[in-house]
Order: sequence, then structure tokens, then C-alpha cells
Amino acid sequence: MLESTVAAIRPLDEPAMVAAGELHGRLTKPAGSLGALEELSVRLAGLAAACPPPLPEPAAVAIFAGDHGVHAQGVTPWPQEVTAQMVGNFLAGGAVVNAFARQVGASVTVVDVGLATPLPPAPPVPAGGPRLVAANVRPGTRDLAVTAALTRDEARAAVETGIRVARELIDAGAGILLTGDMGIGNTTPAAVLVAAFTGIAPAEATGRGTGVDDPTYARKVDVVRAALARHAPDPADPLGVLAAVGGLEHAALAGLILGAAARRVPVLLDGVIAVSAALAAAAFAPEAVGAMVAGHRSAEPGASAALRHLGLDPLIDLGLRLGEGTGALLALPVVTGAVRVLHEVATFDSAGVAEK
Amino acid sequence: MLESTVAAIRPLDEPAMVAAGELHGRLTKPAGSLGALEELSVRLAGLAAACPPPLPEPAAVAIFAGDHGVHAQGVTPWPQEVTAQMVGNFLAGGAVVNAFARQVGASVTVVDVGLATPLPPAPPVPAGGPRLVAANVRPGTRDLAVTAALTRDEARAAVETGIRVARELIDAGAGILLTGDMGIGNTTPAAVLVAAFTGIAPAEATGRGTGVDDPTYARKVDVVRAALARHAPDPADPLGVLAAVGGLEHAALAGLILGAAARRVPVLLDGVIAVSAALAAAAFAPEAVGAMVAGHRSAEPGASAALRHLGLDPLIDLGLRLGEGTGALLALPVVTGAVRVLHEVATFDSAGVAEK
Repeated sequence: MLESTVAAIRPLDEPAMVAAGELHGRLTKPAGSLGALEELSVRLAGLAAACPPPLPEPAAVAIFAGDHGVHAQGVTPWPQEVTAQMVGNFLAGGAVVNAFARQVGASVTVVDVGLATPLPPAPPVPAGGPRLVAANVRPGTRDLAVTAALTRDEARAAVETGIRVARELIDAGAGILLTGDMGIGNTTPAAVLVAAFTGIAPAEATGRGTGVDDPTYARKVDVVRAALARHAPDPADPLGVLAAVGGLEHAALAGLILGAAARRVPVLLDGVIAVSAALAAAAFAPEAVGAMVAGHRSAEPGASAALRHLGLDPLIDLGLRLGEGTGALLALPVVTGAVRVLHEVATFDSAGVAEK
Repeated sequence: MLESTVAAIRPLDEPAMVAAGELHGRLTKPAGSLGALEELSVRLAGLAAACPPPLPEPAAVAIFAGDHGVHAQGVTPWPQEVTAQMVGNFLAGGAVVNAFARQVGASVTVVDVGLATPLPPAPPVPAGGPRLVAANVRPGTRDLAVTAALTRDEARAAVETGIRVARELIDAGAGILLTGDMGIGNTTPAAVLVAAFTGIAPAEATGRGTGVDDPTYARKVDVVRAALARHAPDPADPLGVLAAVGGLEHAALAGLILGAAARRVPVLLDGVIAVSAALAAAAFAPEAVGAMVAGHRSAEPGASAALRHLGLDPLIDLGLRLGEGTGALLALPVVTGAVRVLHEVATFDSAGVAEK
């Protein structure tokens, strides 16, 4: 499934992009006056091979949840059980991602791709409420500080879970996928992934995650440095990188991105977990970048390095570092607005407005 | 009306801000992880003197349209008639501001505060569609390059039109006002206003507006410099500054901001026209800044200078330079999301999530 998905990913459609650029020139606004929204809408025309491209509706957030063996190294002050507890909170509709999803009418799908602790008893979910997909590959990764986090088969299973979720959401009608994640400790594997794929130094790739103190931060940088030295991940072998130093949610997100790109549906990236997974997706299939929209610039330094490497400019930059998909959801109206302009705005001719 | 409105503007409510900060600390997310959204929601609690503050709904965009005598100086390649033609486009629902307003469910009110040319025949407007308010103070300003743009009485009439529109929209239920503007040539008075209130140099305050060429830009900077020298506007006399070098839409927007601040309703600022008017509003009433939310960072350099002077950080920064209210509308979901968090997100206690 991974190989056929990668093989299905094709370049953007040039004629549709040219048509979108020309349409922009006829709309009642000064040329170029919508800035980054114009480039974005042109790229989405290329992705859809249609001008105008379809409105990115309805939106579906997929939150992949997993635990991390590297938690044992003391890289975060939060107990590991919080991953499952927060999944319970997502399913009950009580997290920030739920509030933001309700605001924009996005569905929420929570995928257990690797929880280490049992879920709390589930409250009744109202119709149309958050949905749980049980797809646990293993109960958390192994500790990447001492061994490979996953076998290649486990990494592949997680990637293919992401591809399968993308297909299901798109088959159910989603016009755009948004990446979400939950996993106590998951900024540590994200930092290793960013360093492995971009070549930046461990201290540059590593941030403070939920806001760790100085000793914890120093430990985290040491763990990232040691993992790179131990595993010597080869960026030309993305499955090997994900297996050695990734997380189950990172691998699944890479799959979600590939699955969306193969179906030519845009995927709106959240923060550092998402963009570290996007680096893996781009290593599998460079043309997958054409389907990616960077939702926001996370406060994590590794996120900015990953975005630079991918050549993506984020739509929102407000110092968020929450994850869950919250930054992607905040950016969704910008993406929709960019496309809506090509559908709804009058031309100079049709509106009887003089040109300069 | 101006004096009583200014007198009604009061500081933010400290207890409500403290309560909002404490509430943020109990919600199921790492402390501070929503970045600028947390500060924004705390400020809006202070404005409303309530925690949580009301959701900023429904939203109302007020687009003030006016023409400019300085058009005669060749500061823009667009014909003056385009102001009225674009007002026709707003009323027909064909402009970018209409597309963005439909997306977020905002009402659109277009105020003729100073059109110089007659409106084109109006198409039928559907119920709930854009509304025209006829409040023409005069058919465009005089040429600020050769004389005062307005008399003090005319400037006051425009400011009070803005106050009146704010009151009417709030009385009709608006939970947030968004600034919009239309006026061929209006970035030239905006640049003079920014230079007058902030003290920056004419070349720093002046941008390329709709995208003017080098000779036009040089002419525009010369006009801004000469206007400052001719009128020597005194920033301690905001009505005098607006009369000497402002536009009717700039003056009305200053009034809209003051009217919103007096009623403790947030006002979401669009681009350089809005923030130049906001400088005037802050000169009338420094506490009015508490009601201002900077929607976006316009590509116009004067906008950034004005935001710095006001101490405001914009929510969106995507190189837009269209005006109309488009940047404010793009930012609206961020404002709503920031407040929604305080209404809807579960606490650690209520969700059964462990703390670090």
C-alpha cells in the first residue's frame, strides 16, 4: 500500500495554475493584493487540476495518538498516562482542538495508533461528534535512546494506518485533511526526525515542548544528540528513519500526508509533530509537498527548520505550541478564503469597474 | 457627541483579566501554549469586564467610502470613479470583502461618507445582504497638497458619522466591529496621518498602495513630505490633524473605533487606512487602544509603524494590501477562537487529566 500510494503522487497541474493566475488578474482587486493567498489558491488549483479548485470543505481533523519509550529518559514532566487521558478529553469534546473544530465545522477523528495505557471509560459521543479509530500498532514505541523505536514492519504498519485514514476520510467526502497529534514526549522524536532529515544540529532542532525547565531541556538535547549518533538515520530511507527514531503518530501522519497527496486533496499541517512527519512524507515522495499547506509556525524551533526545508511558509504565526491540530484549524479559514475568492469575486468586466 | 464618547472610554477591567489568566491555567493544555491567543482573550475579558468575555458574535464590517482631492496630484493610476464603482460592487456582493464576510457570517454595511461621483444604479440586494448608509459629508476631500483637506466641522461630522454607525451596529446586536474602507488615493492621507502621529519620516510612512510604479511612488512621497511641511499637523490635536491631512473615511473610522471603545465592544482593525485612523482615535482617547485588535500586518510600511506606535501585534501577516476590511475578516476566526477557548475547554479537574 505504501509503494502504490507513493507511486500515485504526481506533480501539480501547470495549466490549472496558469488559469488561476490569469483569473486573479481579472478579479476586482489590485493585482497581487491578496499576497500569500493568491499563491496558495494557485497551488491548490494545480493540486486539483481545476480552476477554480473545489472549496476545501468539509474539513476533517485526524488526531493520531501514541506513546513514547523515550519518556523513560525524563524528557518531559508530564506522566505518560496523560496521552490516553487527553484522548478521552478529545472524545468528550473538551479539548482546545474540539473547540476550534466546532468553530469551523470540522469533523474530529482520533486514531489510537500506539497508546501505552488503556483509555478512560468513554462518555457517550453525540452524533457527528468525535470518532475513535482503534489501530494500535503497539503500546508505545521502544526507547529510541537505547534501541530502535520501532521495527520496519511496525513503522510501515503505522504509515499505512495513516494512508488508510486519509482514504476513508476522503471517501467520506472530506475536501481537506488537517493533521492532529497527541503523545506525551512526542517533541523529542520530532526533534530527532527534523535533525535527521534537514541536517541541522540537535540543539537547533530541539525545543521546550510543553515548556520544560532548563535541566529537562538539556537532557532532551542530549537524548536527541545521542539518538542521532546511535542510529545514524539515513534520510534517503524514510521508513528506516521513522523506525529508528520516530513515533507511531509521526509515522501515521506521514502516511496521512501521502494518502492525501495521492488523492490530490490538500493536507493542512499543524505544528512540529506534523512538519517532522511531513519531512518523512517528502522523503518518500518529493511531489507530496504540493499537497501540503503549512498551517502555522509552531514555537518549536524544529518546526521552522522543517518548513524551510520543505519550502513552505506558514499562514499563522502566533506562538502556539499546543499541537492536537489547533494551529491547522486556526489556519483553515485562510485556506478556504483563498479558494473562495476564485469562486465568488466579480471580474472588472462583470462588475463594471474601471481598471487603472 | 465626540466629547461625550471620548469621556465614556475607560480602562480595561483588571479583575476580569486576572480571572481569565487564572482560568487559562486550569484548562487542559500546557500553560501558555496558545501563545498570543491567551493574551488576546485576557484583554477581551478586561474590555468586557467579564470572564469569559462574550463570544465576538455576530460580526459587522463597516466600510467607509470617500474620495480624495489629492488624487489630482497623480498619486495613483486608478480613476477616481473606481471608488463609487467598487461601492456598487460591495452592494452587489461581488468584492473580496463580500466573499470573506459570507464565509464568517459577518454583515456588511457600506457608508458613503464622501464619494465624489454618483453611485452606479444599485442592483437589488437580497435580505441580509450589504446595506448602504448615505452620510456624505462632502464629495471628497480638498487636495491636501494645496489646502486643508477638510474644515474642522467637516472632520467632526465624519468622526461623528463613525460614532453613530458604531452605536447603530452595536444596538442591532453586533459583538465585534470590523473596519473597512474604500477610497482611490486613500493610502496617501494614511501615510501623512501615520507620519504626523508617529513622527516617522515621509519615505518610511509611504507605501505603494495598490502597487504604484517608481515615478508615482516618488511623487507620492513628495506629496506626503510637502503636506507635513505645509500643515505642520499637531498630534495633540487629532481633529485638526484629520481636518488638515485626513480623509473622510479615515475620520469616520476613528469615530467607529471610539464608538466601539466607549461601548466596550472590540474593534478589529484592517490595514493601513484603519491603523492610521486608530492613531487618531488613540490621540483622542489613549484607553481606546484597549478595544483595538490588529487584524493583520498590511504590506504598507506605514501600517507596521502605526501598529508599533499603538503597541499592537497583528494576528495575520500574509502580505495583503487590498483593504476593504479583508484582513480584518481573515483574522476574525482567530479572535473568536481565542474567546471560545475560555467558554468551551474542559479543566484538568473536570476532564480527569493529570497535571505535570
